[in-house]
Amino acid sequence: MSMLDIITKKKLGQELTQAEIVEFTRGAADGSIPDYQLSALLMAIRLNGMTPRETTELTLAMRDSGDVCDLSAIPGIKVDKHSTGGVGDTTTLILAPLVAACGVPVAKMSGRGLGHTGGTLDKLESIRGLSVSLTEDAFVRQVNEIGLAVIGQTATLAPADKTLYALRDVTATVDSLPLIASSIMSKKLASGADAIVLDVKTGSGALMATVEDAIALARTMAEVGQLSGKPVRAIVTGMNQPLGTHVGNALEVKEAIEVLSGKVKGDLLDVALLLGSHMLVLGGKAADVDAARAMLEAALSSGEGLNRLKAMITAQGGDAACASNVSLLPQPALIREVKVGHRGYITAMDTEALGYVAQAMGAGRIRKTDAIDYSVGYILPVRIGDQVTEDTPLCTLYARSEADADRAEAGIRAAITIGDAKVARPPLCYAIVTADGVTRFD
Amino acid sequence: MSMLDIITKKKLGQELTQAEIVEFTRGAADGSIPDYQLSALLMAIRLNGMTPRETTELTLAMRDSGDVCDLSAIPGIKVDKHSTGGVGDTTTLILAPLVAACGVPVAKMSGRGLGHTGGTLDKLESIRGLSVSLTEDAFVRQVNEIGLAVIGQTATLAPADKTLYALRDVTATVDSLPLIASSIMSKKLASGADAIVLDVKTGSGALMATVEDAIALARTMAEVGQLSGKPVRAIVTGMNQPLGTHVGNALEVKEAIEVLSGKVKGDLLDVALLLGSHMLVLGGKAADVDAARAMLEAALSSGEGLNRLKAMITAQGGDAACASNVSLLPQPALIREVKVGHRGYITAMDTEALGYVAQAMGAGRIRKTDAIDYSVGYILPVRIGDQVTEDTPLCTLYARSEADADRAEAGIRAAITIGDAKVARPPLCYAIVTADGVTRFD
Repeated sequence: MSMLDIITKKKLGQELTQAEIVEFTRGAADGSIPDYQLSALLMAIRLNGMTPRETTELTLAMRDSGDVCDLSAIPGIKVDKHSTGGVGDTTTLILAPLVAACGVPVAKMSGRGLGHTGGTLDKLESIRGLSVSLTEDAFVRQVNEIGLAVIGQTATLAPADKTLYALRDVTATVDSLPLIASSIMSKKLASGADAIVLDVKTGSGALMATVEDAIALARTMAEVGQLSGKPVRAIVTGMNQPLGTHVGNALEVKEAIEVLSGKVKGDLLDVALLLGSHMLVLGGKAADVDAARAMLEAALSSGEGLNRLKAMITAQGGDAACASNVSLLPQPALIREVKVGHRGYITAMDTEALGYVAQAMGAGRIRKTDAIDYSVGYILPVRIGDQVTEDTPLCTLYARSEADADRAEAGIRAAITIGDAKVARPPLCYAIVTADGVTRFD
Repeated sequence: MSMLDIITKKKLGQELTQAEIVEFTRGAADGSIPDYQLSALLMAIRLNGMTPRETTELTLAMRDSGDVCDLSAIPGIKVDKHSTGGVGDTTTLILAPLVAACGVPVAKMSGRGLGHTGGTLDKLESIRGLSVSLTEDAFVRQVNEIGLAVIGQTATLAPADKTLYALRDVTATVDSLPLIASSIMSKKLASGADAIVLDVKTGSGALMATVEDAIALARTMAEVGQLSGKPVRAIVTGMNQPLGTHVGNALEVKEAIEVLSGKVKGDLLDVALLLGSHMLVLGGKAADVDAARAMLEAALSSGEGLNRLKAMITAQGGDAACASNVSLLPQPALIREVKVGHRGYITAMDTEALGYVAQAMGAGRIRKTDAIDYSVGYILPVRIGDQVTEDTPLCTLYARSEADADRAEAGIRAAITIGDAKVARPPLCYAIVTADGVTRFD
């Protein structure tokens, strides 16, 4: 078959065969199919969709376009976790140590910040000396020794996805359920996971703005998991405001340490415990999520979670002293306290805009090659539903310069709506989706 | 606006503004927009369509992406004719001299053969010495002196269409009404026509296989004509069998000469008179098509049509002796007579396959750079509805070798269905479409 025939079939809304999907995926990975044909196909997929079978074939073809990580030397069920991306979302740094402390091995490959969303690798690299580049052998050895490791994806992981993702970004075909689902799932499957917990965000700072769209993506990924023989649970959680109160790389590490130290509660911990509970259940260490949550809470209050984080930092070459003294993390040129300035209620946040404020401060990359300033970002203690007065602290800015702080302050003010009437706090969890169906909580 | 915004709008099924259409058309012409973005947009247009206003803006933007021919130095209304492409379709060589003889100036830019369809330029170049490359000045002068000229499109005509057409060809986006209509109309408008007669083919050898699709394309082009201020009449004609009995370059020139000599009647002449009548009406030389047809028939029987063809051949450097003695046209290495071989009725023809038979014999190009053999092709005297016996001549092959003739014979036999029951002759004209509406004849 030719690429033209494959494009034609999808243009006509027909279902592609496995052989056709493998053909174009291989061509995307090895460069033998020109970009202009791939992008026409991507638009046809965006507009005419894919069946669950096609999405699964695409996932597996992308997985097999590169190296597949072999974690069989790690005993037990390896449960991975993936988030579709959020702001102030540091769940990995909290749940990975807690889950590991409860006996489920966490061999995790994470990503970098993208657009307005942060990335676990960037956060970890704000710890002096820490490396996220381990060989596969060292990765496996570390998980077997201390129960967890968090590293970057190797360049040879799902190269077809790399090509297609780069094209989607410049051809307005990012927002396609089968393309999003296969991109995420191909990398999770290539990284060797036995089971996967997905955190599908919804709200003003999420890839999927509406709950229905988020549930649809969750269903697609759960179907791909089932058709691939890997248990998947997708939790639809809220991103109508930053999840934690800290946004920025070192700031989010600091918040994770404070949560693991038992000093800080709140939405970030709640979502970490929610996701972690499902990981323990999939990992066969708890009969149900209630039992799992109790185990995680015990690991938190005993300090074993924090100990595991320290062990991981040390194992990956980092200076674990920061886990006892967060002032050892990178510090900014200036810190500015900002007050709300008038009375009312926090009624809404443009979380995407808040993410871009942090990016503009230097916490994220505008171009792929940009360097990150680990020290910058902001603390935003206010939450939707809060009553505020003139003197209520709005945020603490960690900035490189007064000019940066001015811009960030203006950006944060513009992104936060203060109204006259109290609104309810938005839900943290909207739905749990498995191959068996959807359980809604809203 | 950015190209990504333009793709996004069309992906969402929204209407593009004139500025957005001009932006991407200019980028296609000057190479500043990468192919992968153009092809994603083309697929979005193919699947989500364009309004008549958008199609017209695209037509005008493509027209203005290059030189626009100025024919104002030619007095009178310049009426152009365009066919969507057929097999054995030599109407231009018949109607152009007849229309010119009736006083409507014919300043025509034609194209080359493409795929299974023939091209007027290739046919004309089978005449020894004839050139289809004239300067604009020489082109205008020739039309003013002898009433007609047929030349190739200059390289600077609608360069945006060249880029987009080449991409459509490799991204399965050829079959889009707004893209077909704007491609055709942009070139016709750039070639300086005041009014246009379109021959929209339908049937087994046509771009638009069904009558409804052909009428839809005709309507789109008529709408573009109206919105551009140029009168357009689109005639939907049948291509369920080759139009003339001769297929191949020199063979089609021979048939045109025989028709203009009054020796041959039939479908080819009928369609030429039909299209030519509408050209005379649009050119203001006849009150209605009946009067126009009478004028064309008079020019045919007086021999003035043939005289005009000879004058054009001479003016363009060709040896007009072939118009009196067709054996001066290129002759093939061998000629083979083929008989039907069994009794029955001709019930159907795969006209596209018949076109590809001629291409494979050497009459067309498989690659753009292929040389054409002007001498090859075939004469196919049978028509759908004919009763045949074993000894009825099926075709006369003009071939380069016995092996070529064997392949062509097999190809022609495979493309022609002979059944037991007589079928009606297919209509020649299905509909006439203007901006005012559709008149159907089927």
